[in-house]
Formats: sequence, structure tokens, C-alpha cells
Amino acid sequence: MCDDTKMSDSGAERNRGITPRRTVCVYDCRPGSNAAPPRTIDISEADYSGFLQALRQEFSLSTNETFVVSTTDRGEIDAELYKELVDGKTLHLFESADQKLTAATEERIEFLPHYHTLVQCGMYEYYASEGQKALPYAFAELIDNALSATAANTGIRSIEIRLMFDESQGGPAVVVMDNGCGMTSKQLNNWAVYRLSKFIRENGMKREESGYVRPDPVPRSLNSDISYFGVGGKQAVFYIGQSVRMISKPAGSPDVHEFIMSKEDFERKEMNKEEIYSGFIRNRKPGDYSHVKESEEQFLRSIVTEEEGKESFTAVVITGVQQEHVSFLKHNYSLWTRELAHTYHYYIHGVDGNEQKKKRISDHVSNIDIQIVLLERAPRVPRVMNLREVENDMQTLYINSSFSTFEFKATGAGESLVEGLIRYHPFLYDRETYPVDPYALGPSEDEDEDCVILNSEARGKRPIFECFWNGRLIPYTTVSEFEWCARPKKAGAVPLECYNRISGVLFANDRFQVSTNKLTFMDLELQLRDNNTIFKRVLNGQELRVNIQREFTNWLKECNERFDKQVMFQGFLGSTTRTDV
Amino acid sequence: MCDDTKMSDSGAERNRGITPRRTVCVYDCRPGSNAAPPRTIDISEADYSGFLQALRQEFSLSTNETFVVSTTDRGEIDAELYKELVDGKTLHLFESADQKLTAATEERIEFLPHYHTLVQCGMYEYYASEGQKALPYAFAELIDNALSATAANTGIRSIEIRLMFDESQGGPAVVVMDNGCGMTSKQLNNWAVYRLSKFIRENGMKREESGYVRPDPVPRSLNSDISYFGVGGKQAVFYIGQSVRMISKPAGSPDVHEFIMSKEDFERKEMNKEEIYSGFIRNRKPGDYSHVKESEEQFLRSIVTEEEGKESFTAVVITGVQQEHVSFLKHNYSLWTRELAHTYHYYIHGVDGNEQKKKRISDHVSNIDIQIVLLERAPRVPRVMNLREVENDMQTLYINSSFSTFEFKATGAGESLVEGLIRYHPFLYDRETYPVDPYALGPSEDEDEDCVILNSEARGKRPIFECFWNGRLIPYTTVSEFEWCARPKKAGAVPLECYNRISGVLFANDRFQVSTNKLTFMDLELQLRDNNTIFKRVLNGQELRVNIQREFTNWLKECNERFDKQVMFQGFLGSTTRTDV
Ligand SMILES: Nc1ncnc2c1ncn2[C@@H]1O[C@H](COP(=O)(O)OP(=O)(O)OP(=O)(O)O)[C@@H](O)[C@H]1O
Ligand SMILES: Nc1ncnc2c1ncn2[C@@H]1O[C@H](COP(=O)(O)OP(=O)(O)OP(=O)(O)O)[C@@H](O)[C@H]1O
Ligand SMILES: [Mg+2]
Ligand SMILES: [Mg+2]
Repeated sequence: MCDDTKMSDSGAERNRGITPRRTVCVYDCRPGSNAAPPRTIDISEADYSGFLQALRQEFSLSTNETFVVSTTDRGEIDAELYKELVDGKTLHLFESADQKLTAATEERIEFLPHYHTLVQCGMYEYYASEGQKALPYAFAELIDNALSATAANTGIRSIEIRLMFDESQGGPAVVVMDNGCGMTSKQLNNWAVYRLSKFIRENGMKREESGYVRPDPVPRSLNSDISYFGVGGKQAVFYIGQSVRMISKPAGSPDVHEFIMSKEDFERKEMNKEEIYSGFIRNRKPGDYSHVKESEEQFLRSIVTEEEGKESFTAVVITGVQQEHVSFLKHNYSLWTRELAHTYHYYIHGVDGNEQKKKRISDHVSNIDIQIVLLERAPRVPRVMNLREVENDMQTLYINSSFSTFEFKATGAGESLVEGLIRYHPFLYDRETYPVDPYALGPSEDEDEDCVILNSEARGKRPIFECFWNGRLIPYTTVSEFEWCARPKKAGAVPLECYNRISGVLFANDRFQVSTNKLTFMDLELQLRDNNTIFKRVLNGQELRVNIQREFTNWLKECNERFDKQVMFQGFLGSTTRTDV
Repeated sequence: MCDDTKMSDSGAERNRGITPRRTVCVYDCRPGSNAAPPRTIDISEADYSGFLQALRQEFSLSTNETFVVSTTDRGEIDAELYKELVDGKTLHLFESADQKLTAATEERIEFLPHYHTLVQCGMYEYYASEGQKALPYAFAELIDNALSATAANTGIRSIEIRLMFDESQGGPAVVVMDNGCGMTSKQLNNWAVYRLSKFIRENGMKREESGYVRPDPVPRSLNSDISYFGVGGKQAVFYIGQSVRMISKPAGSPDVHEFIMSKEDFERKEMNKEEIYSGFIRNRKPGDYSHVKESEEQFLRSIVTEEEGKESFTAVVITGVQQEHVSFLKHNYSLWTRELAHTYHYYIHGVDGNEQKKKRISDHVSNIDIQIVLLERAPRVPRVMNLREVENDMQTLYINSSFSTFEFKATGAGESLVEGLIRYHPFLYDRETYPVDPYALGPSEDEDEDCVILNSEARGKRPIFECFWNGRLIPYTTVSEFEWCARPKKAGAVPLECYNRISGVLFANDRFQVSTNKLTFMDLELQLRDNNTIFKRVLNGQELRVNIQREFTNWLKECNERFDKQVMFQGFLGSTTRTDV
């Protein structure tokens, strides 16, 4: 092959009016040429006939010798095609057009991923068989990043989603801000590299280089280390809108770094044949909004102004937000904030979750504030909500309607660990207390219509377990049951309906894999069903190597005996007229 | 900013022992410097003190003037850090280390997607809540491509999946071969570009350039145009193995083009700081295996040898196949071949599907042969199967147990079109004929245990519709019902149980979107539930604008009256002894 010089002619060169250097790499493919190495011919200055002459000279072709020179796709180079030859093109010199290749040739190609890799990565990933519900999961990716960034904070970890829907200020824009460690310009550069995960990243110049250090195990894997692929942020941003401005100030540096990635930029670069994956980081002092266009981006000025006095922060400013997202976010405020409160339940409420009874006594145990602010045009007033205030997410409902908890641990191969718990929701007087999902719609309610329902109340046919990964909900994966807590075929010591009064949670650590969009586990259930998985009961913090099924059954029996309060209508005694009321 | 010269120092230059050119781009950030443009300083030859001298000169710093020069991340350039400066690095010149940035600076960065974009793209996408079952869907991506490539074939369209599991021949390897149009070297180059979809692709030099032409509508959208994202092939290949060799001969050219993409190559290029997305296409004559290592890749020779005499073809040769895939493919042969037969049912059997009664009369109506060949070490004999022979995929079972079909069409906004059909599986004598999925496992069978089952037989609670996109199954999306074919709350003219005797198929055209892994539709059901969707009945090829619900109910009534044959055990008459047997 020819020297591996850069092939594509640089847009920059052309812009400056310089004739770019053009060479071609020609293989002599005539019979008898004996697999000779190719020759590089400079054609920067030559017209078509000059090119032919250079060819004749290079390969010592006599004037009356006929030949054909063609692309590797057998396109004969005539005067017209000649003009379109790009720098570095590989050509074949044949005796005649239909001659076979005597020896193999090698042709250098480039195959840079198309920019749709970034711009479209979210589009077909947050696939929404459940319709619009995908948007909270895109937000979740940005909250994940903010949780990681604030993990080492000593004070409050503050995360704010600000929906700037006041068109008079420019926008609409979605801004996610955190007071975490921020990013150096090198880290901001790394942010932009698709699929550069924390496991393979260098974080600065060599002497600062640090491999990834796995955090120490913590209860329920609430380690705030919720990133894996180097994809999430970009996927989320381009699902929500068309452009992102990352603004970040790393702790310990007086400078703010800013980087824009946008669909429009990519399109322009492609059109102008500029390098697609090149861009500029702007380094500036905090509060300096001199680069912000006054007219369009009023809201941005206010964000930049807020920078002053912050030790470190990151702001993800998404613009070009799809109009359908804007109206979804406005009109389904309580739906999607509840979904986020559900996703981060144990981060915002601490390991024990949202125990409403306890809360009155002690203050909240978590220092993570996730705040949602919705700004609309005056006279509409801003709506502000801390996710901790959400009182109707499923975990809150489960926790506060349960009377007892059975804890366990499952360990498998290679440090894989699941902490689990099962909660009991008793039958009280005249009804099941198993919580109903207030937002659940459709078939789950009336699907049993054609059966005479005996025991389908309470949980019904819903799966027992919701599943969390590194402490955050993976929304589309549930585990219906384990053998040891499944309802037996025949009633034993425990009434069968008690098996319908349990809900559960699984907390998996990062040895379990999730899909890129973090909507599903890869094979949590499969791994847990593996014979090598060991289940232990956890009682008062002690792990007990016991027969888990027996323990569970005993616990369930006790729950039934202690908590279920059935009032039965025994028969008709007579009517009494109360005269005292 | 400094001139946008290429930044990264080229591995090639270094390999040739040439000191690469090194420049830095220095901003004067001292107070009063007034946002002067940066200066480029050549440091190729200079040591640290030479660099300092050049700095002093460039910025007219007097000898006793103190200054600090640092990276944009405030790393002070000392002798050690100086050595690590890469070409093109942006530096800041300060008066003192803690001085603020007076004016903003711009720093050129590159953010090429990491090669994991390609190598890992399949890994977390064919997420397998159903365990190993994902593998057939990776194969499906390669069959999709082969179907597209053979769409214009005049004779047989032959697609072969060859599993080369005879270790004595090298491997294991998975090979997918088709006799389609093949790829020119330009097209092979395009194949390698991640996310370069058919919609945005140029197919050759300018004068051959052709935008994408949407195929004309055909019944059931069996248009063989099953590609969308520019992702599928790569995703599939790197899910199955670690390396792919694409071998292709385009029609009309005497040359074969060959390109290898492998995890190992990427790793090597990264290590040597070579350009990641550069490679070589090998152009050669058919049957020329001179480049194949004799020892390791015996099986490859046989594939290359087969090339001779073929007008055009493509072979996708996957090596580094994961051992667990190998054993899954060996041990679950009938499971996964059945899944593929299901996926391509209407391609391999034609629009009417696998009607077993008719087949004896006419020969098959499709010219698509999808053949699976499993080769193991002698004395094991090869297993060969044409997917058309599969007789127990669900569509075959549905078709052959149905007595009548109700056809309809749904049209929505922007040319979106769904052809649909509902089949009736009558009750015959003593049992439902609704087919049972022979591979279905688990809860669907016994989940009704706790109800007294009245009408849950036949379909039970399964969704009515399987969904196809451009004629091929999208396996994880089903549609349970439409309003007009849902079981009413109260029995009317038709016995309620008849609503459980229907199965259905939806054929969506490409105006509906699917997720990148082609496992789910984005919002098929949502779109169909839209009020603007118009349902028409199709009768003998005629579209009727009628009340679909009434038509359907009438059809169902007729099915019940004509086909359901209930034999009832009326009462005891007496015992008879038969003397004639
Ligand atoms: N708010 C933030 N503060 C500080 N650093 C951030 C922030 N957001 C992103 N980053 C940095 O950018 C990197 C890329 O983020 P991105 O979400 O795209 O991928 P990821 O988090 O590494 O992996 P995943 O695909 O699992 O999300 C992060 O690993 C982190 O180093
Ligand atoms: N067997 C084949 N024969 C001819 N061309 C092929 C073949 N396989 C792939 N190609 C070409 O390579 C391109 C890229 O294939 P790939 O499967 O990666 O993406 P795609 O089919 O374009 O989109 P999708 O992501 O929907 O699969 C195809 O569009 C097609 O032009
Ligand atoms: Mg992330
Ligand atoms: Mg494809």
C-alpha cells in the first residue's frame, strides 16, 4: 500500500484558498507486473492529460501502449471522473478494462462513525412502548451523572432540574445543575467521547492518570457510582433536545469550561467537509456571559450569572427541546416527578426509605436534594418541588403500608451481590392493605373479569420485586418471585392468600449488568436462579446461613398471625335500634 | 484560537523515527493583555529551557518578569510536564498561578467516538431478559441485510448460515452468505461506518450518487428493505464474536473486496496511537486465498474457494465466537431455527404464509431459501435445514388451525399503514383448537390456578396480535387488542368465549419506527390507538369503508355458527357391550 498520508483533503485548507495536495496511489495490475508495490503520484497541479502523462512516465508505458486506469470499483478514470478524485485514492492500472486482478491490492479506507452516533443515540433507545413515559428515564441519566459528581460532597448534594419554558427569555430549555466536583477541560473533553467509559479513561496528563477505583461496598449499593457506558449523558441530551451546552467548573480551579455539542454544528461541519469530531472548549471566568447572544438566550445569562461564588458545579443546558416534550413536562408534572422520586427513592430518603412515621421525629437522613423547578411565562408562577416531598411513589406506599420486613442476601459468582427485602401488607378488618398503583392503567384491573376471583386481591398477579442497580431503579425489570417465597400449590401452615400480601425490593450491585439505556437488567433473574446463588436471611444485621424457605414461611406465618385482622360477618342476630345517637 | 492544524501526533510519523512536529498554542492571559489572539510556538526541537526562552521572546517578557504557563486545567508546565505536552496543546500564560482569566480562551479538542462504539454496540443492546434467546435476533440482523441484498435477484435468493464448529478446521466461525448484489469497495467502506444509514449515504463517486429510493408498496410490506440505522450488521457481529471478515463481490465487477474489522485490531491501533477508524480493503480475484493463514483458518480457504463462478455474493465471516454461543447454537438447534422461521415466516412462505394443505398442490411461492448448516468435527455429520421446513413456528400453527380469516387495514397520518388479519380457531367437539406454543414456559400455564376458570382457555390472556415490520417479526412487541375486537363486557350476539378463539397478525410498513435492535416498535400501539387511525375491512381484496366493529362481530358470529362444533355429554343412557370388535 501507499504511505498512509492523511487522505481527506482538509476543509480548512480549502477555506484558506490553498490548493490542497492531491496524490493517488496506483497499483500496476497488468499481467506480469508481479505484485509490485504501488506508486504514489502527486496530481495536485496536473490536469487530466498531465495525469496520464505522469502515469506513462511512472510505469514506463510507451506511447502506443494502451491501458486503463480505474478506481477499485472498476470506474474508468476519464476526464470527468478525474476531477472528482479525492486525495489518497487507490487506483488500478490495467491492460484492458475487463482484465482480472493478478495480485491482490490494498486500499486504505476511513470509517469514522457518522455523527448520528451521537445525535440519534437516544432516539431509538428510550423506545417507548409505554408512550411518553420514556422522558423521565432520560432525565434519570442526567441525575445519575449528578449523583456521581456530588458523591464526595461534604455538605448538601444539590441537583436541580430547571425547566425554562418562559419563551420570553429564549428557550425552551432544560437545565440540569449540580454542585458536584465539576469537570476539568480534559474531563469535559472526555465527556464528549462517545463510549469512553470510566473503566478505560485517562483523566489528565500522564502523571495524574488514574485507573477506575471501584467504590467500597455500601448498604444497598447506594454508592452513587451510577455510570457504566460513557453513553448516558449524550443519549439523554439528544433525546430531549438538539443541542447541549455543558458548563462546568472543577473544584480547585478558578476557571469555568464550556462546550457545545449540537446537531446543527455537526450538520454544518459535514456540509463544509470539516472534521466532524473537533470542537472548542471555551475557558473563561465565572459569570462571564460576554459570548451569550443577548436576544435569544436571555435565560442563559441568568445561569451564567449564578456561577459566581460557586466552588464547583456542572450545568447541562439543553436547547432545541422538542415541543411535544415541553407539553408533556408541563401537563404531566406529577406523573414524571413521581417516577423520578420512585427511581431515586433510596438516594433521597436514605437506606430505610421514606418511613413517614419516623420522619416526624428525626429529620431526613439523606443529604441529596433533587429539586424540580418549572418556569413559565408570567403571570404563571414557578412550580418548585423537592423529590423528597413526593408521597405517592410506589416505594413510599409499600414502606408505609407494611407491618414487617424480611431481609435477605443473595450472593453468586464473582462478588455479585443482591440485598433483598420482602414486606408484609396485612389484611385489616375489611380489606387488603396492599397498595394500589394510583397511576396504573388498563388491563391489570379488569383482566380477571372472567374468573371467579378467590385470592387474586392484594398483589394479584403482579411480580413481587422491583429491582434497583447501584441503588437506583431499573424500571423495566421486575422479578416475579423466587422458589422459596412463591406460593405453594397446596396450603400448608400459612393461608395461601398471605403470599399475595408481600411486596419486595432487590438491590443489585454493579456486578450485574444493565442495558445501555438502563431500562432493563441483562440477566438478573437468570443469574439469581443459578444453582450457585446462595440465599441467606439477614436478621438484625446478622447474616444467617439457614434454610431460607423455612425462615420465610415462619416469618409469613407470624405476619399472618400477628397482623392480619379479619372481621367476619358470622350471621344475622337481629336488628338493634340505637337510641343513643 | 490557533490555526486548526492536526493536533495528535501521528503514530506513523513516530514509527518512521521522525521527530513529530510539536507546537503549542499560548494565550497571553496576563491582566491588560486585552484578549489578544493566541500565538503558536513550535517546540519540536526545544527542551524545557528553550521553550521558556521562546515564550519570553514571543511575549516580550523581560528576564526579571515572573510568569506562569499552565494547561487550561491549571497544571503548571514544569520540566516534567513539558515533556508530555502533545502537539496542538493550548496553554495559558499568567502573571501568577492563581490569577483569574481576564478574557475567555478557546481550546481545540477532538472527541472521536471510542472504538467500543462498534465493538460493544451489540453487547448491551440484545439485552436478554429471556436469557440466551437474544442470539437468533442477532442472526436476524444479518438475514435482514441478506434479504435486502437479494431483493433484486431474478432467480433463487439464497441465504445460508453456516456454523463452522469443526475445530480441526480452525474457528469456531459463524458465516452468513448470500447470493445478493454484493458490495463495491465504496459500499464496503460505507458498511463499516457506524450509523451511516441508507437515507444519508452516497454510494460512489458523485456521478453515481443516488439518494435513497423508497420501494413501492407491496402486500404486507414484504419489500425486503429491512434496514434503517446503519447499525445492525456491526451490532450483530460483535454480539456473536470478536472479529468479522466481510467478503463481497459486486455484480458486474470481476473483483472481490475484503475487509476485516476486529476488536484486536482496534486495541492494537489504540495502543500504538494509530488512527482508530482507518483500515484496508483488500481487492483480489475470486478464489485467491493467498492471504489466508494455512494453519489457523482452514475453513476460510474453503469459503474463498467457493467464490469462483459466482456472479455476486457477500459472505460475513465471524470469528472469535463466544464459547457460550457455540454451545447454545449446538444444543438448542430446533429452538433458534424455529425462532428464525417465525421471524421470516412470510418471506419464506409468501404472503399467505405456510398453508400446509395448499402446499401439496402448488409448490412454494417464495424464492427465498434460508438454509442453516451446522458443521461439527467428524464423525458428526453436518446438519442441514431449510427454514421453510420448520413446521412448528407459531405462525404455521396459527395458519393451519384456523378456519376463517378477517382482514383489515389501518391507515394513519403520513402514509403509515398496517395490514392486519384475525384468524378463527374454533372449538371442535371436545376441545379448543387454539394452538399452544410448544416452547412457552412457566407462569402462563398455571397462573390461573387460583381462579375458577370459565373462559380462559384458547388464547387465554395472551395478546391477540404478533407484529411484523417490513414483513419481518419484531419479537418483543405485541398488541393485545383493538377496541373493536375486544371482548365486550356483556355477551351479545356472539358467545364471549369466541373472543378467545382469535389470533392475529399486524403488518406495519416502515412509517412505523422500531428500536435500533429491532426487538420492539417505538409506538405502534399508541399510533394505532390515535383517533385519526382509520380501520377498514378488506374483503376479497376490496377495502370497505364500513363499521369495523359490526363487520368483525358479524364475522365472529358466523365463525361461531359455522365452525364451532360442541359435543355435549347429555346424560347416561346405559352401557352397551360391543361384540363386533
Ligand atoms: N454532572 C456532571 N458532573 C461531573 N462530571 C460529569 C457530569 N456529567 C457527566 N460527567 C462526566 O462525563 C462522563 C460521561 O457521562 P455520560 O453520562 O455520557 O456517560 P457515563 O456516565 O460515563 O456512562 P453511562 O453511559 O452509564 O451514563 C461521566 O463519566 C463523567 O465523568
Ligand atoms: N449481505 C450484504 N450484501 C450487500 N450489502 C450489505 C450486506 N450487509 C450489509 N450491507 C450493506 O451495509 C450496510 C450496513 O449494514 P448494517 O446492517 O450495519 O446497517 P443497515 O442495514 O444499513 O441498518 P440497520 O441498522 O437497520 O441494520 C447496509 O445498509 C448495506 O448497504
Ligand atoms: Mg452517565
Ligand atoms: Mg442491517
